[in-house]
Amino acid sequence: MDRTRMNREEVANWFRGLQDRICAGLEGLDGEGKFQQDEWQRPEGGGGRSRVIQGAVIEKGGVNFSAVEGPLPEKISDALKLPKTDFFATGVSIVLHPRSPMVPIIHMNVRFFDTGAGATWFGGGIDVTPHYIVDGDARAFHQHLKAVCDTHDPAYYPKFKSWADDYFYLKHRKETRGVGGIFFDRLSHSAEHSMQDRWAFTQDVGEAFVPIYRRLVEQNQSLPYGEKELEWQALRRSRYVEFNLVWDKGTKFGLDTDGRTESILMSMPPIAKWRYNYTPPTGSAEADTQAKLRKDIDWLNV
Amino acid sequence: MDRTRMNREEVANWFRGLQDRICAGLEGLDGEGKFQQDEWQRPEGGGGRSRVIQGAVIEKGGVNFSAVEGPLPEKISDALKLPKTDFFATGVSIVLHPRSPMVPIIHMNVRFFDTGAGATWFGGGIDVTPHYIVDGDARAFHQHLKAVCDTHDPAYYPKFKSWADDYFYLKHRKETRGVGGIFFDRLSHSAEHSMQDRWAFTQDVGEAFVPIYRRLVEQNQSLPYGEKELEWQALRRSRYVEFNLVWDKGTKFGLDTDGRTESILMSMPPIAKWRYNYTPPTGSAEADTQAKLRKDIDWLNV
Repeated sequence: MDRTRMNREEVANWFRGLQDRICAGLEGLDGEGKFQQDEWQRPEGGGGRSRVIQGAVIEKGGVNFSAVEGPLPEKISDALKLPKTDFFATGVSIVLHPRSPMVPIIHMNVRFFDTGAGATWFGGGIDVTPHYIVDGDARAFHQHLKAVCDTHDPAYYPKFKSWADDYFYLKHRKETRGVGGIFFDRLSHSAEHSMQDRWAFTQDVGEAFVPIYRRLVEQNQSLPYGEKELEWQALRRSRYVEFNLVWDKGTKFGLDTDGRTESILMSMPPIAKWRYNYTPPTGSAEADTQAKLRKDIDWLNV
Repeated sequence: MDRTRMNREEVANWFRGLQDRICAGLEGLDGEGKFQQDEWQRPEGGGGRSRVIQGAVIEKGGVNFSAVEGPLPEKISDALKLPKTDFFATGVSIVLHPRSPMVPIIHMNVRFFDTGAGATWFGGGIDVTPHYIVDGDARAFHQHLKAVCDTHDPAYYPKFKSWADDYFYLKHRKETRGVGGIFFDRLSHSAEHSMQDRWAFTQDVGEAFVPIYRRLVEQNQSLPYGEKELEWQALRRSRYVEFNLVWDKGTKFGLDTDGRTESILMSMPPIAKWRYNYTPPTGSAEADTQAKLRKDIDWLNV
């Protein structure tokens, strides 16, 4: 087995199966909603399966699988400092907007990128965006991620946690998107890790998604809320919109490679509100959350 | 008088007065709402006056004046193909989101940009985004703009109308933001026009704003609407969000020059909705509008 390469079809097939398992898991968790699927083809090559759920727990959720290929747009090869080449990209991408403002928004992406020019890598991440930050939930979430990382390399968690802090950051607001998580990119073979090692790690991240979200839902789904909390949720959702449309490289990559717009923008919330210059009242739960939207919080020990 | 240069302070003062006149005009038009003002300073130099109205006709509207200066960020000098230099930028920027879905969203911007490296120009534009396109309104709007343009140069309207079609375009949706209008940039001195000519044109565009919007409000404000129209308005507003955050160069310039985020994002609607893969029913008023979100419509003759 070549420790520097992966079989494209094998990776894509596994991601396709992951999508199935995650959708089944989320339907179980939701109890009512069922995923609706759209299959699509990309004119330049490849395609995908977009699945959307509108349920009892999940107000709007998208679980997208894609495997696309073709000439790499120059804008992207330049940004990646690659020569003119063909590319193949496959992965699963998820954003779930829950009905209850007490349950966090969650995002996961796991992906494989391969070029004719030899560049080949895995990337991905999971991050959680609570409308109301609960320290114990953030701690349990980061502990879960650390356990997944530690099985593969004890250096992974600290590195990828810090990368997530930097990546899921709204520079124009000077705030993080939520409590972070892990983010990794360009994981290719190295002295310590073969591509098969990187792949096994990426797979474990993918499989961690459902148990992680199940815990967050079970802990918070029955908490009471009213108009005030729904209003705050709508304001936080507009920050989610700002991050994805202004800063997110995945969204940019999708729009730049003529991806399917409705699949890329499945991450948009069902509703969002903007209120000019709004600051939550001092001492409120909302102000407490706002104050915790910072980089470099050691969530393992809060 | 140097026909190639403008006095910075004189231009800024005129824009400040324009903001006053427009706010007074809009308060008269609204009948109830009053503008609230925030004055702000930019750490690197300059500042502005942001004014927001929440009224009976205008649900959320921002009229912003700014005059900022300092070193031009490299990202911008590179994009503008300018050497490392200082800059001065002043102007008035407006977005109004009306309560009634029968009344269009309107945007105007008029601006002056000046650098220590000799580059100096005017830019701006007005465009209208109806939730429901009414041919007669679009025609009257374009006729008004043509009349303003023709006073200065008969070549202006066709050129700037076409520029607006290209600029106010959502590539990822393959649709225009609305019925367009005019857009112009980098108007500096030329064989035909002194800077004073360009300035007089820019001033006339600024003064045209209130009469243009008054007509649109008076024509449509009393039309009946219900839940269906409000739902469609929320969906169209999300396209407005997508344009401003993904494509608008003014928003990008603001965020790249560390502008005041709340002033830049005054353009965001109070509420917006995203529905996965939504297409309005065939034959509906919504489908009719959707079909007219195209470039190169000769609105003068619809």
